[in-house]
Amino acid sequence: MIRLAVEPLTRQAFAPFGAVLQTDGAAHYPINQGNTTRYHALAEAETDPAGRAILSIFRGVPRPTPISITMLERHPLGSQAFMPLSDEEWLIVVADRPKTESLRCFRATGGQGVQYATNVWHHPLLVLARAQNFLVVDRDGPGENLEEVFLDPQAEIVL
Amino acid sequence: MIRLAVEPLTRQAFAPFGAVLQTDGAAHYPINQGNTTRYHALAEAETDPAGRAILSIFRGVPRPTPISITMLERHPLGSQAFMPLSDEEWLIVVADRPKTESLRCFRATGGQGVQYATNVWHHPLLVLARAQNFLVVDRDGPGENLEEVFLDPQAEIVL
Repeated sequence: MIRLAVEPLTRQAFAPFGAVLQTDGAAHYPINQGNTTRYHALAEAETDPAGRAILSIFRGVPRPTPISITMLERHPLGSQAFMPLSDEEWLIVVADRPKTESLRCFRATGGQGVQYATNVWHHPLLVLARAQNFLVVDRDGPGENLEEVFLDPQAEIVL
Repeated sequence: MIRLAVEPLTRQAFAPFGAVLQTDGAAHYPINQGNTTRYHALAEAETDPAGRAILSIFRGVPRPTPISITMLERHPLGSQAFMPLSDEEWLIVVADRPKTESLRCFRATGGQGVQYATNVWHHPLLVLARAQNFLVVDRDGPGENLEEVFLDPQAEIVL
């Protein structure tokens, strides 16, 4: 069992895995006669040519603590974005290779979403305090868009 | 000056204009070993072949009340989705034709987003109590994706 360090989520630290969806530090400009600020193109949905980007809502519930990290998944045909719909912290676990020693764990604020780039290994949704909804933008279409690996040894997150 | 009736936002009432992004009444199923519920494919991002779907955050500020509705816009090359990131009611104004007498005004809860279908006339973002952020999924790419019309007579919304 390996205990994961929990890092704050920043654009720089997450760059190898995809995009962070947040207003802080993002390029922006006024629209709608000054009544709206557009933080533009924080991410671009990726799909294979046969796929399409769809919008869904995921509702996650907290897992028992300490949180066991026993597997990772990835989507070879498109990106997957998660944006929290309530202001609660949540966790993100990613890896450049599907190995326990490659795991990285980020703690996001309720104002931060992420988009996993195509083919990036990640753990399924991890919420903390209570049930939390997310808007999810990912790829739908023909073909197999899910790979899973099980980790040995497992890891755990102690908060 | 025409005063608009304010209707509750429902899937059925909004169907001519696009999709409502909400969990209530949506097809759903468990994923992630039962730790997540997926409310699947509430909308599909539409773009022309040269375009791509991007994710942005819009931050809207309230307008003076009563709210004057003086113009509409539409996007001929793609859909545009708005999902609130905080639990505050907001307003949606749409029309099947860019005429004052065709205007419809819907009041959404903080748990309801919408996607305007391609080419649907709508008013820019209308928030109510305070500044409010939205995740926006719309189309980027070459070509002109904005048409605007100014309304005569104008309309107003009295809350």
